[in-house]
Amino acid sequence: MKDTDPIDTLIGLMARLPGLGPRSARRAVLHLIRKRGPLLQPLSEAMTEVARTARECLNCGNVSTSDICPICTDEGRGNGLLCVVEDVADLWAMERAQVFRGRYHVLGGTLSALDGVGPDELRIPRLMDRLGAENVTEVILALNATIDGQTTAHYIADQLEGRVSVSSLAQGVPIGGELDYLDDGTITAALNARKRF
Amino acid sequence: MKDTDPIDTLIGLMARLPGLGPRSARRAVLHLIRKRGPLLQPLSEAMTEVARTARECLNCGNVSTSDICPICTDEGRGNGLLCVVEDVADLWAMERAQVFRGRYHVLGGTLSALDGVGPDELRIPRLMDRLGAENVTEVILALNATIDGQTTAHYIADQLEGRVSVSSLAQGVPIGGELDYLDDGTITAALNARKRF
Repeated sequence: MKDTDPIDTLIGLMARLPGLGPRSARRAVLHLIRKRGPLLQPLSEAMTEVARTARECLNCGNVSTSDICPICTDEGRGNGLLCVVEDVADLWAMERAQVFRGRYHVLGGTLSALDGVGPDELRIPRLMDRLGAENVTEVILALNATIDGQTTAHYIADQLEGRVSVSSLAQGVPIGGELDYLDDGTITAALNARKRF
Repeated sequence: MKDTDPIDTLIGLMARLPGLGPRSARRAVLHLIRKRGPLLQPLSEAMTEVARTARECLNCGNVSTSDICPICTDEGRGNGLLCVVEDVADLWAMERAQVFRGRYHVLGGTLSALDGVGPDELRIPRLMDRLGAENVTEVILALNATIDGQTTAHYIADQLEGRVSVSSLAQGVPIGGELDYLDDGTITAALNARKRF
């Protein structure tokens, strides 16, 4: 088959998705061609629609189909709580838990001296602006428990000191977790943060 | 987020691809939104194009963007060799090896009494028609080395007996294979088909 074949073009593009390689891209494209009506056509229309409408929320950095995302415009969420996350995948993970009813602020990464990512590359100045504009009373740092995530959390906590209450997600044994399979750092954190039973 | 959100729609459709689940579909969609220009737009155009043009080759069952696929119309491949495969993925695998220069016949599955797949559900009548029409001298059965694949191979070989020469792919130790990791059936087949060194 020639490289200009639309099927080959599609396979090549699908193989660039995270989690798909050349083999699984071929399998996915064959599946799409077999399910042209129920899957390929709706998928191609959904992609065209997302390509046309998807953008970053100007306020919080969430992906959205409007300039300001539905979470930022939801009056019921203006409760003074602001949850800071690294990226949109983390925001979606928080939303799936269906427990947080405030708003979010997506940094778009973590501080990294090695990669040349400073506060201005992240959405930190915008975070400062939001504190007063949205009457934020508490900032919840929900950054990943990695070195870069925690460095970024410390930096932001320093910046916010004296302006607003700052908290971070608890660290400890995950629900369903077995001690035998946990790393030393998690056990240490869980022991240090132990609670009266 | 509401279910009518185009981004959610796209995630739901992507999750129906083989090899992707809900989590990897979300990751893929975020990746697509971040790479809108270089990836999402070309991908959506390629999908639209494939949805518009892809079809089954009327002659061999390969997927193609024309009624008769490029392999069937390639005069250089009319050498009398016809390779019978189960599905298009197997045809592509043979083509990647770049060793076979004849034509293909895609059955579209295997015979299966349990699933009610008989010869007429596969492309077996069309195979019979092609023998004379294309002056086929040898049919190479390249079916999977599974029970269903081999049952189908035996059925086709019976049908072809006396009309044309029939062969099948050799079975044995795969290139780079280590005996210690091979199953008993493969070792038995390799021993029975041993060759003078």
